[in-house]
Amino acid sequence: MAGARQEAAEALIPEGRKMNQPLADFTHFAGELADTARTISGRYFRQPLKVEHKSADQPVTIADRETEAALRRLIQQHFPDHGIFGEEYGRQDVDRRYTWVIDPIDGTKSFITGMPLFGTLIALLEHGRPVLGVIDMPALDERWVGATGQPTLFNGKKSTARRCEQLSHAVLYTTSPETFRGADAKAYAALSSSVQLRRFGGDCYIFGLLALGFIDLVLETELQPYDYLALVPVIEGAGGCISDWQGKPLGLHSDGRVIAAGTPALHEQALALLAGQHR
Amino acid sequence: MAGARQEAAEALIPEGRKMNQPLADFTHFAGELADTARTISGRYFRQPLKVEHKSADQPVTIADRETEAALRRLIQQHFPDHGIFGEEYGRQDVDRRYTWVIDPIDGTKSFITGMPLFGTLIALLEHGRPVLGVIDMPALDERWVGATGQPTLFNGKKSTARRCEQLSHAVLYTTSPETFRGADAKAYAALSSSVQLRRFGGDCYIFGLLALGFIDLVLETELQPYDYLALVPVIEGAGGCISDWQGKPLGLHSDGRVIAAGTPALHEQALALLAGQHR
Repeated sequence: MAGARQEAAEALIPEGRKMNQPLADFTHFAGELADTARTISGRYFRQPLKVEHKSADQPVTIADRETEAALRRLIQQHFPDHGIFGEEYGRQDVDRRYTWVIDPIDGTKSFITGMPLFGTLIALLEHGRPVLGVIDMPALDERWVGATGQPTLFNGKKSTARRCEQLSHAVLYTTSPETFRGADAKAYAALSSSVQLRRFGGDCYIFGLLALGFIDLVLETELQPYDYLALVPVIEGAGGCISDWQGKPLGLHSDGRVIAAGTPALHEQALALLAGQHR
Repeated sequence: MAGARQEAAEALIPEGRKMNQPLADFTHFAGELADTARTISGRYFRQPLKVEHKSADQPVTIADRETEAALRRLIQQHFPDHGIFGEEYGRQDVDRRYTWVIDPIDGTKSFITGMPLFGTLIALLEHGRPVLGVIDMPALDERWVGATGQPTLFNGKKSTARRCEQLSHAVLYTTSPETFRGADAKAYAALSSSVQLRRFGGDCYIFGLLALGFIDLVLETELQPYDYLALVPVIEGAGGCISDWQGKPLGLHSDGRVIAAGTPALHEQALALLAGQHR
């Protein structure tokens, strides 16, 4: 596993523009973080597990907490001058040049229901902008790695979004239609009734499938920075577009509404449709 | 793979009541059918593939057709006096004592969008009653085998539903809330607002996760016999309950509304709630 990841990181260099050395080092390190997360979440998946609730709709387990704690320790050991922002243990020094943003288990509801569609998300921000992103699927042995200026890799091979340019031909995924309320629900209804096929479920995985060329659009709302920042380099390095619902780049202070598309043309059409409903 | 499946079939015999010899032979043969289906669907998954549409909402590919054709040939070779009913090529001699009911790719919409949650469903009916069921997940290397009077096996090990007995603690899955229309939508809304957690997606896989003890309820509508008959021995052999929305056993002529629960108590509560909405 670790060997394959190292090759993947090295393979990045000759393929796109040459990656600067710090980014290549960070990419390699992010692979080690993802390997560590796999080991921990793999010990708990489908085992008897106490589920606590941070709020009515926010389950959490020891697997989330133990994974994030381990990744924070590794980051502090290797890069003591970097900031960290994780789902379970919050923000620390996020005003530094570099900040790691981590969701130890994205899709905790999948995780606690035995569904293998949970992932680990790792982003690195430079001056607040995501320059590196990893979507790792521990139970599926699948990993996407994206880095600014480089082609996205899926298990070490180039991952490219497909060229769908018409809403009426598009496949749209969203994790749950129930997350869209009020004006968001109207916007979702307008978009979902314009596409060829709608499907549900998946959390971060559906962004990976978009980067791999099997899905054309993903619409989500109520996401947190640790849910979406790692997706940005993955989607962009695959030739896709990802933004908030106004088309603005995603950052630490976005409003949690996220749209990803396989092509700029589809992204624009979807944004126009959302804008018509969402005022 | 084939070796592991054979051991699984043999392991059935000492564990529950002794399986009668024809059923043991049929179980072994069903494993061979599933192995064959895996080989074919595995060749097409995530490959460029022409998607046709049987109707607006019913995609089909060469993978569906080629898989079913291969399974039908094997059945005809081994059991020329058995009936066959498959999704793609229809009914043939279904008045015989034994009939095989096959969905070569359950979850074609997952299959064509690169999502590994598609399965092959194989049921054997004796006098119209499902006595053997296989849920096979080719891309996940996971297989459930259920046979009348025997404990359900998941990859060769006993698969048991969990003992949730209260709706308010239950996890409910359904593939898509959009399939529920009219009175079905009211019934779904009543049930989904009574449970602890609702999730979407999965087709046959969510019935497998119920048999494995991670989901408490599955509600579906608009299913066909090849979508639900294989699920019956799997769910029942795991200690769960599966029926139509009136609580009647599922057969070739059920109306396509299916509810599965991990316990009889939960099944009864859910049925009562559906009956209150669905007249």
